[in-house]
Amino acid sequence: MRAAVLRNRRIEVGDVPAPEPGPGEVLVKTLACGICGSDLHVFHQAQHNDNGGGAIVMGHEFVGEVVDYGAETAKRFKPGTRVNSIPILNRKTGAEFIGYSAVNPGGYGEYMRLTEDHLLEIPNGLPTEHAALNEPMSVGWHAVNRARLEKGDVPLVIGCGPIGLAVIAGLKIKGAHPIVAASRSAKRRELALKMGADVVVNPNDGSPYDVWREQAQTGLPDPGPTLPGWLVGSGLKPAVIFECVGGPGIIQEILNGAPQDARIVIVGLCFEEDRFQPMTGMGKEVSLIFSNSFYRREYAETLRHLAEGEIDVAPLITGKVGLDGVAHAFDELENPKNHAKILIEPWRD
Amino acid sequence: MRAAVLRNRRIEVGDVPAPEPGPGEVLVKTLACGICGSDLHVFHQAQHNDNGGGAIVMGHEFVGEVVDYGAETAKRFKPGTRVNSIPILNRKTGAEFIGYSAVNPGGYGEYMRLTEDHLLEIPNGLPTEHAALNEPMSVGWHAVNRARLEKGDVPLVIGCGPIGLAVIAGLKIKGAHPIVAASRSAKRRELALKMGADVVVNPNDGSPYDVWREQAQTGLPDPGPTLPGWLVGSGLKPAVIFECVGGPGIIQEILNGAPQDARIVIVGLCFEEDRFQPMTGMGKEVSLIFSNSFYRREYAETLRHLAEGEIDVAPLITGKVGLDGVAHAFDELENPKNHAKILIEPWRD
Repeated sequence: MRAAVLRNRRIEVGDVPAPEPGPGEVLVKTLACGICGSDLHVFHQAQHNDNGGGAIVMGHEFVGEVVDYGAETAKRFKPGTRVNSIPILNRKTGAEFIGYSAVNPGGYGEYMRLTEDHLLEIPNGLPTEHAALNEPMSVGWHAVNRARLEKGDVPLVIGCGPIGLAVIAGLKIKGAHPIVAASRSAKRRELALKMGADVVVNPNDGSPYDVWREQAQTGLPDPGPTLPGWLVGSGLKPAVIFECVGGPGIIQEILNGAPQDARIVIVGLCFEEDRFQPMTGMGKEVSLIFSNSFYRREYAETLRHLAEGEIDVAPLITGKVGLDGVAHAFDELENPKNHAKILIEPWRD
Repeated sequence: MRAAVLRNRRIEVGDVPAPEPGPGEVLVKTLACGICGSDLHVFHQAQHNDNGGGAIVMGHEFVGEVVDYGAETAKRFKPGTRVNSIPILNRKTGAEFIGYSAVNPGGYGEYMRLTEDHLLEIPNGLPTEHAALNEPMSVGWHAVNRARLEKGDVPLVIGCGPIGLAVIAGLKIKGAHPIVAASRSAKRRELALKMGADVVVNPNDGSPYDVWREQAQTGLPDPGPTLPGWLVGSGLKPAVIFECVGGPGIIQEILNGAPQDARIVIVGLCFEEDRFQPMTGMGKEVSLIFSNSFYRREYAETLRHLAEGEIDVAPLITGKVGLDGVAHAFDELENPKNHAKILIEPWRD
């Protein structure tokens, strides 16, 4: 089959063996697949690997169409049914990721094999390209669930890439208000407002934490110069900060800006060692809540949010390419300020 | 008044001005005061300061006896009444710490001034030396409250110095079971058992995390090689880990050992920059909950726990000295494996 393969440190279009569905597995034809920030990371890592990172068919944000079934399947869906799945193969020997090897190719290729048990049918009326955003939107939904929001919490979203935007959408569904969001990109601030942010701020123009403080006033009288914040109220509503940037240094930056008692949900990925001053977190008694992908249940919930129009992801799709356009799309995403999500349609000319 | 003063990088006994109680303040005669790990840190910091750290009368774990009142006081307690207080002066110009300067001397001197509003009367029958441990025991109680324990949580306490022991005592009051505790000191493991630990482990003999896993089995069938831990249950009860060691590197060590979904309460202090791998926390979806001292309410609750015999701190008092013995006590505490708490009695010969 044709695929955009990461090989020899480059993304090149070529032929790779089509996957064979094993027991409990389904062969699907890829209809659409998003390019994820983690894919960019894998691409960068490959630049430093002796073997160029091997041959990888990436893509874990996909929608496919049922083509064929392997052994031991219930054949729940007719061929042609549009489906998606968490990007995990559930094999007898253990779980395997889809989209991080050539053995379990992801949506950058014409075909994938998926675990039948994980298939969700794309509801009628939900465009394929919107359903392809189920995966990143689930990451945001999980992060919002991890925060265990309570009435009165005022969220601040740092970074408005696809994951930050997904967090905003999740906060909106939960009824959080006001939602403050920060991004240096004008395009992404505009998207943040479309996804449900109430106030957006460009960190080049002023501190997101100051804007948050303006929005989080309780209106109660200032307790005055009496006792440290951890001994009396601060006059502010509780802060829930979402770190949606990733990379070293961001956690300390958020610790510096965060108000007393903030819950900080870490959604951005930092693959390197990071440094921080534990006493900053200690003095403010923050919590750092790491949030990694999503539960199966949340993936199904998000598909329902998309189908019922509770999240409109149309504005997030800022580009579509065929397999020949993937390498260029990766270049574009190096400086993504005008992009949110680029979709690959492997069958497109 | 006489005091053990940190001056010229040494602890020396000398005369300093007795404090004068200002408006809303009470003069007390110090009856007993604990030496805290933070005092040792201040002592070490002084070694590196150009001015030797100035002159400081430390001591924030104290019991005193009411001697005199300043202006604007209600004179709630008769002279001679035994009292303690959070180590904070609540002045019109703001809050000031007690025990970190010569201006607001702590319990390493014969007299202190305290804020009348913060005074708690030591209940009849509670020995002064036990009440002097109210402060560190409150730190443990606060940390346990920060963990928001739920039924079935299995705690693991890393480090059994006074704060780790205080955490164990707090866990015992909450009914947590089994309580697993780790320390390299045989003396401290013995104290951990006395305070309520069910299982103690010497990290030189084996991994505390393995011992925790043995204790945290749900007894449910192993879900087998199906999906990663964040997608299915792990067969383990929820982990709540208390970091009671402090210093750089410990957080990463705990991240390495922690099971999936652990809540990690950071009580130990690390005054330096620390390094860690955020992806370790991300992969396990842990929460890092920083816990700093205590609320006023918790300080009063802990005094009640001591008075009602819910916590017996007698075994924790491993030494008592007069002012002349403070410098030697600091030396002893450099290698504290045979010590938990050393008390200063400034009026002792």
